[in-house]
Amino acid sequence: MQYSSKIIEQAVDAFTQLPGVGKKTALRYVLHLIKQNSDDASQLSNIIQLLKTDLKFCVSCHNICEDETCEVCSNSSRDKSIICVVQDYRDVMAIESTGLFRGQYHVLGGLISPMEGIGPGQLNIETLVNRAGAGEVKEVILALNATMEGETTSFYIYRKLAPLNVDLSAIARGIAVGDELEYADEATLGKSITNRMPFSTFFTVK
Amino acid sequence: MQYSSKIIEQAVDAFTQLPGVGKKTALRYVLHLIKQNSDDASQLSNIIQLLKTDLKFCVSCHNICEDETCEVCSNSSRDKSIICVVQDYRDVMAIESTGLFRGQYHVLGGLISPMEGIGPGQLNIETLVNRAGAGEVKEVILALNATMEGETTSFYIYRKLAPLNVDLSAIARGIAVGDELEYADEATLGKSITNRMPFSTFFTVK
Repeated sequence: MQYSSKIIEQAVDAFTQLPGVGKKTALRYVLHLIKQNSDDASQLSNIIQLLKTDLKFCVSCHNICEDETCEVCSNSSRDKSIICVVQDYRDVMAIESTGLFRGQYHVLGGLISPMEGIGPGQLNIETLVNRAGAGEVKEVILALNATMEGETTSFYIYRKLAPLNVDLSAIARGIAVGDELEYADEATLGKSITNRMPFSTFFTVK
Repeated sequence: MQYSSKIIEQAVDAFTQLPGVGKKTALRYVLHLIKQNSDDASQLSNIIQLLKTDLKFCVSCHNICEDETCEVCSNSSRDKSIICVVQDYRDVMAIESTGLFRGQYHVLGGLISPMEGIGPGQLNIETLVNRAGAGEVKEVILALNATMEGETTSFYIYRKLAPLNVDLSAIARGIAVGDELEYADEATLGKSITNRMPFSTFFTVK
């Protein structure tokens, strides 16, 4: 495409860095910003700067936060004996919004993926092993995606934590709430039968 | 959703201003920028500022440009006797990329849309009437969307320009190149029959 202005071309290129944004979408964003009043565009511009200058990663769990430690880690009412291992910040948000977990998190920052060239060394696994081995932790819950990368990472962490004196669990795999058996794949249905649970737990709300 | 950081919340809000961006997509963009190195994020931030400070609208045709007049208007080899009326900058780009139009443009900046509260007064129609009536212009081509808003706007402009001594045309409606008749809607097929053209023009490349 031929842009009449270098600035528009550069802006389109800058927006196409964002995940899932192609040239057409980027141009739509750019034209929208040109039409908007200056305040809205400045606000977006400033907040992008702040993302890089004012955000930190929690020294303990690697979650995104504004201080040295995140809200969860610095909250004394959270149970320090349980660590839930997740892939990234979004998963922390998702689990927090269930309101059913009162322990702490550990954010890996990704999953082991040979296809994308991500090895265990690039993830926050070493600090997890240190935390789990420090004595205070009794249980580690692996809450990773049910994909090949997720399972590989779970298994790698399982091997690392097995020598330590902590219980290791993984979030349940099974039929999603609201789903029909007819449309469930065999792997899921198989797991849901193997890992069947006492009927009485169905109606227990923690 | 509950964000652990005010900055992330503000960044998500700022991104959701963009057309078609919801909270989930905005969060994806924000997390991507946090992971990126600072240079890429700064570049995006700076270019958004430039969009508001360094871009101008052409005094003649209202196209986006970096100077007083756009490249097309200031290009002396372009035919000043034909004006092609379009909705916005994207349409100029699209028509320019065909390489088949050597005249000038007039960018309306939108279409008449009572639903969105856009009346003719908010569009660059008055300046079009002035340009068309200045004597130099012989033909005005209406190249607006084949939607209700586009047709309404075309008809409004037609009424405004009818008293002037200029030829008024509209881009052809018909079967898109590569389309099959079977899947064409009746309105399009009807227009393509009514506006049939001499077979000899099919293979003429200007």
